[in-house]
Amino acid sequence: MNSLPELRSLLPASARLCLAVERFCLRRLKLPRGTRLVLALSGGADSTALACILRILSPRLRLDLFALTVNHGLRPEADADARCARDLCARLGIPCVQRHADVTGLAAGKGWGLEEAGRHARYALLEEERRARQADFVALGHHNEDLSEDVLLRLTRGTGWPALGGMAARDDTRRLLRPLLFTWPQALRELLRQCGIAWREDASNDSPAFTRNRLRHNVLPLLRAENPSLDRSMAALWQLAQWDADYWEKTLSEALAAHPWQEEEHDGRPCLILPRALLAALHPAARLRLYLKVVRLLLGRATGDSGGQARSRTLLDLDAALREGRGNTRFQLPGGIEAGLKGGAMRFSRTLVSHEVGSLNAQGKI
Amino acid sequence: MNSLPELRSLLPASARLCLAVERFCLRRLKLPRGTRLVLALSGGADSTALACILRILSPRLRLDLFALTVNHGLRPEADADARCARDLCARLGIPCVQRHADVTGLAAGKGWGLEEAGRHARYALLEEERRARQADFVALGHHNEDLSEDVLLRLTRGTGWPALGGMAARDDTRRLLRPLLFTWPQALRELLRQCGIAWREDASNDSPAFTRNRLRHNVLPLLRAENPSLDRSMAALWQLAQWDADYWEKTLSEALAAHPWQEEEHDGRPCLILPRALLAALHPAARLRLYLKVVRLLLGRATGDSGGQARSRTLLDLDAALREGRGNTRFQLPGGIEAGLKGGAMRFSRTLVSHEVGSLNAQGKI
Repeated sequence: MNSLPELRSLLPASARLCLAVERFCLRRLKLPRGTRLVLALSGGADSTALACILRILSPRLRLDLFALTVNHGLRPEADADARCARDLCARLGIPCVQRHADVTGLAAGKGWGLEEAGRHARYALLEEERRARQADFVALGHHNEDLSEDVLLRLTRGTGWPALGGMAARDDTRRLLRPLLFTWPQALRELLRQCGIAWREDASNDSPAFTRNRLRHNVLPLLRAENPSLDRSMAALWQLAQWDADYWEKTLSEALAAHPWQEEEHDGRPCLILPRALLAALHPAARLRLYLKVVRLLLGRATGDSGGQARSRTLLDLDAALREGRGNTRFQLPGGIEAGLKGGAMRFSRTLVSHEVGSLNAQGKI
Repeated sequence: MNSLPELRSLLPASARLCLAVERFCLRRLKLPRGTRLVLALSGGADSTALACILRILSPRLRLDLFALTVNHGLRPEADADARCARDLCARLGIPCVQRHADVTGLAAGKGWGLEEAGRHARYALLEEERRARQADFVALGHHNEDLSEDVLLRLTRGTGWPALGGMAARDDTRRLLRPLLFTWPQALRELLRQCGIAWREDASNDSPAFTRNRLRHNVLPLLRAENPSLDRSMAALWQLAQWDADYWEKTLSEALAAHPWQEEEHDGRPCLILPRALLAALHPAARLRLYLKVVRLLLGRATGDSGGQARSRTLLDLDAALREGRGNTRFQLPGGIEAGLKGGAMRFSRTLVSHEVGSLNAQGKI
């Protein structure tokens, strides 16, 4: 059922790698024993290592593992990749499903690039599989160098802080888990070699057609040449960002408990009104995070998180208008959100299409 | 005395540029009328534009302007640059002094690179001149693209947040002012062309011997190709960082008012002790900024701000030790600082050489 070596039979470096992932799962991700996980398996080195490490740890952490491999149908090797993933799962004794994603159709329909469409389709199928398996999380194979890449991508796109610190290791809203976030790709490959497990190189990881790949291949090597421990620094920045995200979340919750926002509906448009007392009680640094919280709530999970750059700048302008007492000012934010000042209070509204209103109401979000 | 056009005679774009700098000085830098400034004048486009813009604004803002040009003696054109700067000042009616810096000697003596030694020497001479002129600030010609470069440099070096947001526009400790921080280099050159003012290109700005130049020439163009409004985003990030820095400063002041730290001296070593009640009252995000505040205080202004990367990681480890209740743990930080836990309190100490102890005592810092 599982032909992998046991933890105690591994060479020291690989055993340490597995134990570091175990500590990360227990201490950082607070993963309870008995967690059910759907692994996103591409057949590449990272997700193959994720499957192996979690399989090695599964008796200790009492994990229930399932795997999904998504065939994007974009590359001639896609079928071979999927076969490789299925063979691996058979060898590890992990139930595995393969699904096809119509990436080109989605890209054409939504006007997205192939990279964005592929990501949307993949995450949607993974979430479907998670629900079908009644699993707690989808587990992804991102490692420390992916984190560095993500920080640089976010900096390039104009992301604010703390989101600039990079992808979450545990996202309870999107039900995503990244147990390898503090591991090194070289160590993952070394473990696979030791276990005699093959992987496939994904040629699309090298394609200069995608921003992420251009940053990975053209920019990050230049930064690592300046600072060989760049990736460790990025991990420290990430930790700081995690603390700050937690801090702002708690600070805003306390402020909102003292001065709740008001929910209204005008002409079928949901509104959130931040009262004057709430705004006055907060430092501008806290207010900016509050605006973002409101905008995210109004956008819901249905829409993507694009427009961050224009949004950051507009939110700074909005707060300047508040500080300077410019009443009756209106600001347009990406995603159909409008913000305005009136009598010292701030109103946020969004033009929704009807099915979105129903869905947000059903979620108790508006 | 001043042969520059008046503000009202400038073409609209250049007049707007000057007025934007004026607004920045008044609103952001809170510069009182009657401020005395020493301009750091290299003869390059940025500092030449700084001199011209401040000279145009000086009747409106009632500025008293002086200039210092530092001859680093590193390039054959240094004398010609200095002459150009003197000629400019004669034309603008700004009193100008030239000083020579022994950069190679300083680099050899301190074991610094030429870039670092040049910066230290330049800032030391500027500060001397500021004191001699009884001026309020040294004004520097950094613009928005310098800010982007600085953010990237800090990210590469492993700087935490909010310092990652880039250089200060007004630094009251080091008495530095950057009135052009939100301006564009192209706009500065355009103004100079209109005023018929020549500038000199500094070839050392292109030298690949310096990290900053490698980032400017090799990395930033790649990021701007991904996002043409990268520099505007960096300016927004900078604003957020300013608010956060202000926020943490105020938050820590309040916490310290409720639970002051204790100052001690052991074997001639100054110590700062953070009591258990203070540490317990703060969120980890706030504690990390508190540790940094203590370290900066113990380091004083005498030493540079190097070692930031190792420091960030060690401070994260230190806080983990506190959270996990690991008593009697000691951590070594760059700059001869030692941190340790004892009975739930945290002690920071530094090994000082005797003249530093005297100097810190005299400043009332210890």
